[in-house]
Amino acid sequence: MTGEHKILLSERELPTAWYNIIPDLDRPPAPPRHPATGKPLSPEDLAVLFPMALIQQEASPERFIPIPEPVLDVYRIWRPTPLVRAYRLEQALGTPAHIYYKNESVSPAGSHKPNTAVPQAYYNKIEGTKRLVTETGAGQWGSALSMACNFFGLECKVFMVKVSYQQKPYRRSLMQTWGATVVPSPSPETAAGRAILEKDPNSPGSLGIAISEAVEVAASDPATHYSLGSVLNHVLLHQTIIGEEALKQFALVGEYPDVVIGCVGGGSNFAGLAFPFMRGRLQEGRPTRFIAVEPKACPSLTRGIYAYDFGDTVGLTPLVKMHTLGHNFVPSGIHAGGLRYHGMAPLVSQLVVSGHIEPVAYGQVEVFEAAVLFARTEGIIPAPETAHAVRAAVDEALRAKEEGKPRVIVFNFSGHGHFDMAAYDSYFSGTLVNHEHPQEDIMRALEDLPKVPAEA
Amino acid sequence: MTGEHKILLSERELPTAWYNIIPDLDRPPAPPRHPATGKPLSPEDLAVLFPMALIQQEASPERFIPIPEPVLDVYRIWRPTPLVRAYRLEQALGTPAHIYYKNESVSPAGSHKPNTAVPQAYYNKIEGTKRLVTETGAGQWGSALSMACNFFGLECKVFMVKVSYQQKPYRRSLMQTWGATVVPSPSPETAAGRAILEKDPNSPGSLGIAISEAVEVAASDPATHYSLGSVLNHVLLHQTIIGEEALKQFALVGEYPDVVIGCVGGGSNFAGLAFPFMRGRLQEGRPTRFIAVEPKACPSLTRGIYAYDFGDTVGLTPLVKMHTLGHNFVPSGIHAGGLRYHGMAPLVSQLVVSGHIEPVAYGQVEVFEAAVLFARTEGIIPAPETAHAVRAAVDEALRAKEEGKPRVIVFNFSGHGHFDMAAYDSYFSGTLVNHEHPQEDIMRALEDLPKVPAEA
Repeated sequence: MTGEHKILLSERELPTAWYNIIPDLDRPPAPPRHPATGKPLSPEDLAVLFPMALIQQEASPERFIPIPEPVLDVYRIWRPTPLVRAYRLEQALGTPAHIYYKNESVSPAGSHKPNTAVPQAYYNKIEGTKRLVTETGAGQWGSALSMACNFFGLECKVFMVKVSYQQKPYRRSLMQTWGATVVPSPSPETAAGRAILEKDPNSPGSLGIAISEAVEVAASDPATHYSLGSVLNHVLLHQTIIGEEALKQFALVGEYPDVVIGCVGGGSNFAGLAFPFMRGRLQEGRPTRFIAVEPKACPSLTRGIYAYDFGDTVGLTPLVKMHTLGHNFVPSGIHAGGLRYHGMAPLVSQLVVSGHIEPVAYGQVEVFEAAVLFARTEGIIPAPETAHAVRAAVDEALRAKEEGKPRVIVFNFSGHGHFDMAAYDSYFSGTLVNHEHPQEDIMRALEDLPKVPAEA
Repeated sequence: MTGEHKILLSERELPTAWYNIIPDLDRPPAPPRHPATGKPLSPEDLAVLFPMALIQQEASPERFIPIPEPVLDVYRIWRPTPLVRAYRLEQALGTPAHIYYKNESVSPAGSHKPNTAVPQAYYNKIEGTKRLVTETGAGQWGSALSMACNFFGLECKVFMVKVSYQQKPYRRSLMQTWGATVVPSPSPETAAGRAILEKDPNSPGSLGIAISEAVEVAASDPATHYSLGSVLNHVLLHQTIIGEEALKQFALVGEYPDVVIGCVGGGSNFAGLAFPFMRGRLQEGRPTRFIAVEPKACPSLTRGIYAYDFGDTVGLTPLVKMHTLGHNFVPSGIHAGGLRYHGMAPLVSQLVVSGHIEPVAYGQVEVFEAAVLFARTEGIIPAPETAHAVRAAVDEALRAKEEGKPRVIVFNFSGHGHFDMAAYDSYFSGTLVNHEHPQEDIMRALEDLPKVPAEA
């Protein structure tokens, strides 16, 4: 191999500000609206759930927001993360492309999620919150928040979708090791949970139900706040530490990406890597391409519509303008649980509408094929979500080979698959299948979109 | 926190030679002996199992052995590994000690094991071996060798103890993802396996049986060699990359350890960190202390005797002089499966006899208590084996506090616990218990020690 595999930054080179893309957008984001009245939200409407610092970040006009020192200090446990040149993957593909990946799997929780869990815990702590409550499906977000709360001495309560609680006991153990309380949802602890259990005592739960339980607990106790792991502007903001580091790392090797790739569920890991490079496109017209990769089983960007919708299934959250499949859409049970969300971050959605981001969708069989190729060339086992980004990077590199044109590709290696090996088992045993929803399914779910007053 | 958490080396600073401690020992190691005749072994006796390069390394008189470039190139996927200052752990303990850990869990296989799996695969490849066969218990070694064989285009067959094969399906999936064939042992594929299955079709298997199956397969096919993950001199040699890096990293921060700590099963991760620092003690009389930490459930150093014994249960391997509990000793079923070995590396044993290494033993309850403290302060989840080293480091730091005397402590963070969360579950549920063998058990197993001719 010719150069260094890993492009490292020292802790002294850790970026000290997050990048807020809002001031660089073609037009201001559509405001979030009240779920009952449909009117634009005031900061006070959100204060029952979030600390004021995060509410302000949600709509900040500042381009750069300083990262508080106590947050940097926790980041330094695993950050800066390596930018890695995938020489062995390039060689296996015989491509003239240079493939890089930003390895976010090196955090103790195994993914990019702690990048926002840590500041969310910090801002809550300094505003006097005693406890954070959240929901988790596959468990990546729940474990990140458990770890973050542990570092700042906050209690943490996680409503974990019951079927995952039973099927993924090791993610639950991870959260408990970091001191969190994990409750299978639906639970008898909330009115929302009790209502579901009355109808069906054996309900396997869903992310929508778990969100309702978490929001109910947060809203009913002034010392408790709610925490969300994706979608919202402040979450995407915190993730930009990924791309800010990558900018410095590319400068060290004298390259700049032609193509930036990430998988999208709620949109935060993609935005975290992409937005700092998007700045060059928005401010200076750099021709960098941005590819957001979603599963065919939950195709909000490629088959959904751009409209106001609820963030949750029950309809308790604010209305946000985003690509959505409808809040009642139930995606097929694919292994990439972190990508099974009916909506998409409003900032990512707006950049798709304005043509700055290209969405693509893949079936999970071709995605696992790429994951295994990656594991056998680069060594590391990708999470099923991350494997979507790997697939798109491989295809882009193969296109470079066909066209005989080199290019620099970077993708976000958002997490490892150590807690997802059952998915690999199912791939190797040949039982893995692709899921694609018939058009009727999607049209039916879209009928439930809420009505909102015409925009000003 | 005051300084940098992670002391990093660039890939250019990766050491290019392993350290062979043999020339620096007080006296030459006792020679391995033939299992049937008891006479010292010739290199040819081993050639059916190992490539000549490894047989030569086993008894090399050279102090430094250059690392081949193709091995360095694979090492660079994850090496140099970080040396980390455990500021948060120090703070939680209120100790004046500086605690460092060498983080070997960052390899794709999650432990230090690839440090020797990679050169073993390489030397076999260049000498024409087509396939490597080995045994694995908990799965750390099997996954490391699977990954290494994959990189050098060798086939890999792993006999996995049947009870682990069934209880740890995810370790098995990991090996399959890297392309290995995994067979539950005892299997009908070997005479040894068939003999066991005839007596007991439901045998859960054991490491001793799996070794016998692997050795049988290797001995019966000229294109197949056998590979061992600990105990032997060449395995310890390859692991010294850990300590050689750590020496450079301590030089960068201007400190030098007073105490070096590692857990011991076969002894390789301990030796890998310790031997390069032991050089300063042997050559210049530096007063560094070395602590080898074993489980009370398998106390070969603290309760075994120093004598010739077989490396396996069945009695097929050469006789080596080491601390042993007897090859028929069956350690209790603790979670640290990697430490359940009746013997100990001959080089580690000899250094214990000559007073250069202090052995200590812990019960698993106090070990998991330290593991959880570590996870809650430093973030990372230790493997149950690694947790033994954490416990000893914590106790050493508390001793520094009691005595009011600062000291520099370093321990080997040999692996993460992502595939061992069931052990944490059992700790949190209160079902974890300590195991300590009554003296009769140990005396009975020691009665089976083989007779060897008096030493020359």
